[in-house]
Amino acid sequence: MTSTAAHALHDAPAGSRSDAGSTDLLQARYRKVRARTAALAEPLSPEDAMVQSMDDTSPAKWHLAHTTWFFEHFVLGRDPGYRPINPDWHYLFNSYYQSVGPMHARPRRGLLSRPGLEEVRLYREEVDACIARAFAAGDIDEAGQQAVLLGTHHEQQHQELLLTDIKHALWCNPLRPPYRGDLAHDPGGAAATPLAWQAFDERVVELGHAPWPGEAGFAYDNESPRHRVLVPAHALASRPVSNAEFRAFIEDGGYRNVALWMSEGWARLQAEGWSRPLYWEPDLEHAYTLGGMRPIEAHAPVCHLSYFEADAFARWAGARVPTEAEWERAALHLPVRGHFADDDRFHPRAAAAESPQLFGDVWEWTSTAYGPYPGFRPLPGSLGEYNGKFMCGQWVLRGGSCATPRDHVRASYRNFFYPPDRWQFSGLRLAKDAP
Amino acid sequence: MTSTAAHALHDAPAGSRSDAGSTDLLQARYRKVRARTAALAEPLSPEDAMVQSMDDTSPAKWHLAHTTWFFEHFVLGRDPGYRPINPDWHYLFNSYYQSVGPMHARPRRGLLSRPGLEEVRLYREEVDACIARAFAAGDIDEAGQQAVLLGTHHEQQHQELLLTDIKHALWCNPLRPPYRGDLAHDPGGAAATPLAWQAFDERVVELGHAPWPGEAGFAYDNESPRHRVLVPAHALASRPVSNAEFRAFIEDGGYRNVALWMSEGWARLQAEGWSRPLYWEPDLEHAYTLGGMRPIEAHAPVCHLSYFEADAFARWAGARVPTEAEWERAALHLPVRGHFADDDRFHPRAAAAESPQLFGDVWEWTSTAYGPYPGFRPLPGSLGEYNGKFMCGQWVLRGGSCATPRDHVRASYRNFFYPPDRWQFSGLRLAKDAP
Amino acid sequence: MTSTAAHALHDAPAGSRSDAGSTDLLQARYRKVRARTAALAEPLSPEDAMVQSMDDTSPAKWHLAHTTWFFEHFVLGRDPGYRPINPDWHYLFNSYYQSVGPMHARPRRGLLSRPGLEEVRLYREEVDACIARAFAAGDIDEAGQQAVLLGTHHEQQHQELLLTDIKHALWCNPLRPPYRGDLAHDPGGAAATPLAWQAFDERVVELGHAPWPGEAGFAYDNESPRHRVLVPAHALASRPVSNAEFRAFIEDGGYRNVALWMSEGWARLQAEGWSRPLYWEPDLEHAYTLGGMRPIEAHAPVCHLSYFEADAFARWAGARVPTEAEWERAALHLPVRGHFADDDRFHPRAAAAESPQLFGDVWEWTSTAYGPYPGFRPLPGSLGEYNGKFMCGQWVLRGGSCATPRDHVRASYRNFFYPPDRWQFSGLRLAKDAP
Amino acid sequence: MTSTAAHALHDAPAGSRSDAGSTDLLQARYRKVRARTAALAEPLSPEDAMVQSMDDTSPAKWHLAHTTWFFEHFVLGRDPGYRPINPDWHYLFNSYYQSVGPMHARPRRGLLSRPGLEEVRLYREEVDACIARAFAAGDIDEAGQQAVLLGTHHEQQHQELLLTDIKHALWCNPLRPPYRGDLAHDPGGAAATPLAWQAFDERVVELGHAPWPGEAGFAYDNESPRHRVLVPAHALASRPVSNAEFRAFIEDGGYRNVALWMSEGWARLQAEGWSRPLYWEPDLEHAYTLGGMRPIEAHAPVCHLSYFEADAFARWAGARVPTEAEWERAALHLPVRGHFADDDRFHPRAAAAESPQLFGDVWEWTSTAYGPYPGFRPLPGSLGEYNGKFMCGQWVLRGGSCATPRDHVRASYRNFFYPPDRWQFSGLRLAKDAP
Repeated sequence: MTSTAAHALHDAPAGSRSDAGSTDLLQARYRKVRARTAALAEPLSPEDAMVQSMDDTSPAKWHLAHTTWFFEHFVLGRDPGYRPINPDWHYLFNSYYQSVGPMHARPRRGLLSRPGLEEVRLYREEVDACIARAFAAGDIDEAGQQAVLLGTHHEQQHQELLLTDIKHALWCNPLRPPYRGDLAHDPGGAAATPLAWQAFDERVVELGHAPWPGEAGFAYDNESPRHRVLVPAHALASRPVSNAEFRAFIEDGGYRNVALWMSEGWARLQAEGWSRPLYWEPDLEHAYTLGGMRPIEAHAPVCHLSYFEADAFARWAGARVPTEAEWERAALHLPVRGHFADDDRFHPRAAAAESPQLFGDVWEWTSTAYGPYPGFRPLPGSLGEYNGKFMCGQWVLRGGSCATPRDHVRASYRNFFYPPDRWQFSGLRLAKDAP
Repeated sequence: MTSTAAHALHDAPAGSRSDAGSTDLLQARYRKVRARTAALAEPLSPEDAMVQSMDDTSPAKWHLAHTTWFFEHFVLGRDPGYRPINPDWHYLFNSYYQSVGPMHARPRRGLLSRPGLEEVRLYREEVDACIARAFAAGDIDEAGQQAVLLGTHHEQQHQELLLTDIKHALWCNPLRPPYRGDLAHDPGGAAATPLAWQAFDERVVELGHAPWPGEAGFAYDNESPRHRVLVPAHALASRPVSNAEFRAFIEDGGYRNVALWMSEGWARLQAEGWSRPLYWEPDLEHAYTLGGMRPIEAHAPVCHLSYFEADAFARWAGARVPTEAEWERAALHLPVRGHFADDDRFHPRAAAAESPQLFGDVWEWTSTAYGPYPGFRPLPGSLGEYNGKFMCGQWVLRGGSCATPRDHVRASYRNFFYPPDRWQFSGLRLAKDAP
Repeated sequence: MTSTAAHALHDAPAGSRSDAGSTDLLQARYRKVRARTAALAEPLSPEDAMVQSMDDTSPAKWHLAHTTWFFEHFVLGRDPGYRPINPDWHYLFNSYYQSVGPMHARPRRGLLSRPGLEEVRLYREEVDACIARAFAAGDIDEAGQQAVLLGTHHEQQHQELLLTDIKHALWCNPLRPPYRGDLAHDPGGAAATPLAWQAFDERVVELGHAPWPGEAGFAYDNESPRHRVLVPAHALASRPVSNAEFRAFIEDGGYRNVALWMSEGWARLQAEGWSRPLYWEPDLEHAYTLGGMRPIEAHAPVCHLSYFEADAFARWAGARVPTEAEWERAALHLPVRGHFADDDRFHPRAAAAESPQLFGDVWEWTSTAYGPYPGFRPLPGSLGEYNGKFMCGQWVLRGGSCATPRDHVRASYRNFFYPPDRWQFSGLRLAKDAP
Repeated sequence: MTSTAAHALHDAPAGSRSDAGSTDLLQARYRKVRARTAALAEPLSPEDAMVQSMDDTSPAKWHLAHTTWFFEHFVLGRDPGYRPINPDWHYLFNSYYQSVGPMHARPRRGLLSRPGLEEVRLYREEVDACIARAFAAGDIDEAGQQAVLLGTHHEQQHQELLLTDIKHALWCNPLRPPYRGDLAHDPGGAAATPLAWQAFDERVVELGHAPWPGEAGFAYDNESPRHRVLVPAHALASRPVSNAEFRAFIEDGGYRNVALWMSEGWARLQAEGWSRPLYWEPDLEHAYTLGGMRPIEAHAPVCHLSYFEADAFARWAGARVPTEAEWERAALHLPVRGHFADDDRFHPRAAAAESPQLFGDVWEWTSTAYGPYPGFRPLPGSLGEYNGKFMCGQWVLRGGSCATPRDHVRASYRNFFYPPDRWQFSGLRLAKDAP
């Protein structure tokens, strides 16, 4: 393995580590990510781990198994002599890789009582042991190591989905049980941070990430290549919209004023009876969180908004949703600071006042449709299905949330969901055209 | 309590037992039924017990809880001072008694991870203990005792549904796991029993059951009152249609010949791609059973037919489906003999040749729409919702199946399902008009 | 043709006419029915004749063409050398005769702008001319004459559907245009007729009609054979339920009281927001009629009820819906007297007080599921699809309505619709069990 | 009215005409557009004009009435004393202007038999007469004149929709009648034009249109403001993809190769059974056109593609769909030359070889999601609903088609449809990233 290739296996910029060290780091990352997933699933009963409350979500057990299948198929399965632990599971736990065979229909994942949660835990351990043995034996070649690294990032995405999906699942139960009863929170809430506007002039900026694997650290294929974009003059808010601000919108009739809404958004609002963010109670004072039902903190970022709600709020506020390029340009030189899943709170918090903070707490909707950058090339082979085929009809979100692992995001990271989706920790930062 | 009233509490005809004895018998029946339900759920993992594979079915856990709620609400709840074990569960585990309050939507029962299976088991034990204490203290009055008796019959119905629902749930899993791997079966199958036709002349017969509670033993309100019916001359087959006979229908193109089908049945066949009974494999040689995938026994009764399939087969065979009255008239003086859930096989078997057998193995579709008998009166109060409000659009089935407890059926027993329903152990006996 | 067969060609009982005379009568009937259909369509613009306002209804133009196709296919088409006027129309205007080929999907009938109304009128004339020529040439054999007679009855059914379907279509237009602005009505309405109960004792009666063609006059296959039924003791109301009575039910909260409704009916009520009969305005004072919006006559029979509404009303009134046998037994010896389509009012009217009247004004729901009589045989060949294949899931209605031609009904006539259907002129007569 | 404002009323650039002349030109344009709409509807029978074959389309009669309502409401209705010709029609013929009141549900437009086609024609004449009188009397102020100009462009859009909608409607009829039997076509077809690639370097270009009304000629609000965009280096094809090229894609298994398709596109392909462009026959040799069924011209542009098909073809061809900016940059200095609705052929034709031609024949899908330009401001008042509220989920198409009036398009014109839409004359031009 060349030193260049080695860099491709971890997130650090190129040029600093030896091969052996790089493999050690990769193994450490693997173990850490895998252990974290197990820890996140720890509070769940076998039954909790099986609920699928809507077509868009998956049972926790499925997340546990699918992420494991990913390593089994794309790493261990590179050896032509490898015999799968259970060949049937290939069908059950493939998510959407059409090129590797047919798969269990997504909306029916919640019907899989077998294999049971315990069996899935054993499957995880077995694959972990195989991976460890393969590393020890030096059997994982460069492409295999890349698949391991990709797999850990893939698993971190599923860690977040595990949290957002179980939140929806438990909220669907009329008993509204918490995911964990012991999560810390700020009963009084923080003080209000005044909203400031940061002005940006028109400029051509270089955005995106160099392709991985290659000279640079890890990034998904959809973040590359680096490319030049003319960003027009505009202003960007110093913090996301808060619960208190969103409540003012509600109380001003925002959900009843058709003039504020995209045509499709209004249709959805009427069909589903939207009158407040997902998980808010009718009193506008309490909301369901992963720690159970709690008072809404006035100055924390509002979350669980659809794009339609974010867009309507922005129109009401005389502003607009920022573009993806505006967001990335502002984030380019900022540290990845904010509240992440690592904090074990799983709910957005008010930011400290001092300086603009673009990461963590809530995924921020942008007004940019998710599409390929100029010169985009998907990963080769089946892994090319990872991102490219979803580049239609979804909207980009940026910055990570309170359910995202801190070392998973970066300024160029692109998340994407459909405009009506509300079950992610999705919020909003305002932007304005230059006058 | 009068001696007359006592009779109303059990299935035996009136006139033979003392009050105290009757209460003892009732308690014994209660304990036996409750223990049997627990035993039927024993092979299920917490995850198995949570699957709801279609809107028509319920999770096993829900059956366990709902039957318990029935006793808590309709027996213990008769005491105005009674405090429910968990007041929220009233909402969760009420099935359809609109008059006692709102309820959890049926298609969402599979989303209830909490209370967990273990908690539901404890709930069962707690209610059982309360009932036992109340019996011991003499706190259960006559109406309460009637509710206990009704509750045991109600629970036996849910025992059967637990089996049919878990069969569907496990079959939906591509792994096709068995409910129990240790169920006995007849690998070679039995010899063919030739089909004989029993002729009946035109006659006015008295059918149905005397109302309970009253002079007679237990029966549901929909079985009464006794009433006179003119049954025309006809002939009735000596046994149900067999798998081999139904296979001949398939191989003769029965599923492709529109002339054999009701208009609605043909539409359903096309919409759902029916080409064989539910659970049959495409090879027409194997079928999924509660014991797993097994060879189809040629001479056992065919089951898992919709009414449409039963009707099409009969037309193909130059016969017809019998009416409810024809069936009951034939069954009136026969013993309740056949294969029942008590045999722990949970699959129909070929009958011994000697004499007509109308009970057990498969529920037999009749051509009679489920409706009230002349003079029908629902049970008073909320229990009046038990049967009457479903008397529209469903068809009567008779005789009980291999999943029915033997002491649950009788000649007057009326089961009912929608014409397209296939997941019950439903089969067919042929009839013919007199020439 | 034998004299017996001749009788089969018209509605009169056997034994009275010569062959030639019978053919003349048949031709006269043909011409009368065909002219009546044309007259009923006369007020419609080409656009009116094309509207299909729901899947259950058909455009008027389609009724005009389909009834014509029936004669072309089943009469003229009996000649193997016959060349269809337009072979494509066979596909367009076959309704549901699967055995004669594929057909245009029912819900898409409203998309057929071509052939235009004028072309369809010419098609009618052309077929009429062919039929006339064939009669003149003696080319219509006995079976052909039977098909002609059947076709006239078939066309009369479509006359009624043309009226009920156009009523729904025009009502769907927010302008609520009348079908005809010149229809007579009784602005003041009639005086109330007190409701009397006629008592019937238990008795075996012979019901149904002798099979046609055969010894008797015309009847559909579903009316035969004659068969014996034991009708229990009961009482039957002397007239249908009136608008005033139904309004009292509404004002007493009938549409909000779940205890009055079948389970399926309640679900439908909630899904579609039923709070009054179809076509009633919210003020409960006005209703849309074929003559436009008009005040509701208090003492005229209520109509446009689903079975669910009829059943709920009866329960509220402490009565029940009669069975089919109860209705026919009462009608058996009564004259066909009442308000029919021949009166050109197309809306039910209050009856004169003197004596029970079972025919006309509104089709009366019975509580009997539509099924075959003992010994039922469908017509041979494709015409066997006429009735038999619909014998599942529908309910019998009796007596004819203000939109039925008077000479189309008889005591044994069985109409059938689905329990939720409301767009027919369907009402209700009460019955009671004997005390 | 200032001279500047006058310019706002027509399409010419500013600075050349007097006020009176501008009004004359506007009236002339009004008369021309209105007459053209009437001529396009001329071949339709009253029935043709009423068909609505899917939710996305409207009946021709509705187009005729709605465009007239637009003038009545937004021009004549500016006079507070104006009394509508028929007040009910405001409800019927408002399309989606929520701010001016409720409206008839779009999918139910096909149920409106009244007003009839003739009545709608009279309505058109009446409004035309009112507009003419108002012009003559000088009663139309500047804002009114702007509404007239906007209304003519609006009506031209509906001219195209009238054609695409009636094409779909007539094609749904199994008889496949032509819209006009006399449309010219090129039976032999043209010779193949070789595909050339035009290279563009990276450059910041100014795109979009100055806002109307203002200094410039007419453009929709969604085309402004002018704004600067960095367009990366790329190459653009000299002509659209042809039928022969698309057929090669089909014959190479393009519709069966999941790797070529967006995830949503593949789902739609499977759900609707796509295997060729809309209107193509299974033989891949014939297609339905507004002139009836005709041989497919090999070298004419392929049309009736969804975005998903355009995107899959491009991937198969090793190219991609161009962005909106790439298209507009190339079109910026080209004349509006191509085949338009003015040619009365209503079907795309092969281009002459000489030079790149970006306009006419087929709307060209771009890969750009339809959204606002930086600094976008909707028109004030109700007309602000014209474009802005649809800026979510649709894709931009450029250049106009064989059903677009030639003087309706320009380089900055933005059309938009949903990715699965196929009933427009939508085709594809390929682009490539610079190597």
